[in-house]
Amino acid sequence: MISPERFSRIKRLLSLRQPDLTVLMDNVNKPHNLSAIIRSCDAVGIETLHAVSTDSVIRNRQRAARGSNKWVNLVLHDSTVKAIQSLRDQGMQILVAHCNDDAVNFRDIDYAIPTAIVMGAELFGPSEKAVSQADHFIYVPMQGMVESLNVSVAAAVILFEAQRQRLEAGLYNQPKLHSAYMKKRLFELAYPAASKKIARLGRPYPELDNEGKIIRD
Amino acid sequence: MISPERFSRIKRLLSLRQPDLTVLMDNVNKPHNLSAIIRSCDAVGIETLHAVSTDSVIRNRQRAARGSNKWVNLVLHDSTVKAIQSLRDQGMQILVAHCNDDAVNFRDIDYAIPTAIVMGAELFGPSEKAVSQADHFIYVPMQGMVESLNVSVAAAVILFEAQRQRLEAGLYNQPKLHSAYMKKRLFELAYPAASKKIARLGRPYPELDNEGKIIRD
Repeated sequence: MISPERFSRIKRLLSLRQPDLTVLMDNVNKPHNLSAIIRSCDAVGIETLHAVSTDSVIRNRQRAARGSNKWVNLVLHDSTVKAIQSLRDQGMQILVAHCNDDAVNFRDIDYAIPTAIVMGAELFGPSEKAVSQADHFIYVPMQGMVESLNVSVAAAVILFEAQRQRLEAGLYNQPKLHSAYMKKRLFELAYPAASKKIARLGRPYPELDNEGKIIRD
Repeated sequence: MISPERFSRIKRLLSLRQPDLTVLMDNVNKPHNLSAIIRSCDAVGIETLHAVSTDSVIRNRQRAARGSNKWVNLVLHDSTVKAIQSLRDQGMQILVAHCNDDAVNFRDIDYAIPTAIVMGAELFGPSEKAVSQADHFIYVPMQGMVESLNVSVAAAVILFEAQRQRLEAGLYNQPKLHSAYMKKRLFELAYPAASKKIARLGRPYPELDNEGKIIRD
């Protein structure tokens, strides 16, 4: 049985989640960067993030990184274009971190609207396919000699700007996940082993009381 | 001979440097975090950052990381208390990233005044000695389940808030390095191999013209 304290922490977590903010990691492949980005996503209230890999080595690393944080969902994709299209279909603006002539300062973007931030691979930046799908290119202004930040650093700097704006706009004050999804997810996070078994059997999850105890019929 | 373009980039770099902003890495020891933090320091215009190690393995990694970016100075220390004291003697406020009851939101700090940001080791956080020397503890607000960010991510999020405030305050608009130091550093960055030879011989650096050419007597 879960403790009431832990159950209430998970409920609080879900009440802060921002389903309309996400990150797409486009072939990001270094394990420490993958897990640092996932951790930053959790920290700013992202419920689901995405990773595209066009290569089986990268896919395996992304799959392994998924295990590093059970609090956020990491969805794997093999097509950049389709992954971005599905985010666009959810009404999100597509921001690609990429310093070209059209890029705007990341602080001049409105992150209170539904937003997906695409981060490219460590060495190569975003793929041409990601670049072709952007609504805006964003850059982080820098005063140094080095041309780019570490990818997990750049992702975090952008995400915490989004967090700053969303705090100011009061977007963490009201739960944003749909209630049916929140109920399902609450069971899964409170009872990870049991939820897997029940899902395998194709049964619905049991009801929980206010302290997280399973209500038996 | 250096190209006039590269010479002018280095001059610009030095004109943006913020000698009154720095980071002290207190036993940070993972190579990828060390180099990511150094890169972020360069990016926001830090001229010199500091690393303390109380262990030879960590010291060697910090020494190796120094080679990852020649644009910023990394000073190594073996005493946390002395390192912090020397920053305080330079008039800096000492901020320690540490989530305790006294900690303030990192966005509520004034980074336009002389500031040193102390970041602790990945697993253990700042040492007791660093904690005892703090003027303020700062924390990064988070909405997730994970209790801490990756150390290079946390450093960057704080540094880019400092950058944001310093941009707003116009602190990048006027050169802040002393002119004698700037002249010396300009020669060293423009002619790294020659500067080492000349320094070994104990001679002064030669004068440079406006395009970076060495003026021979």
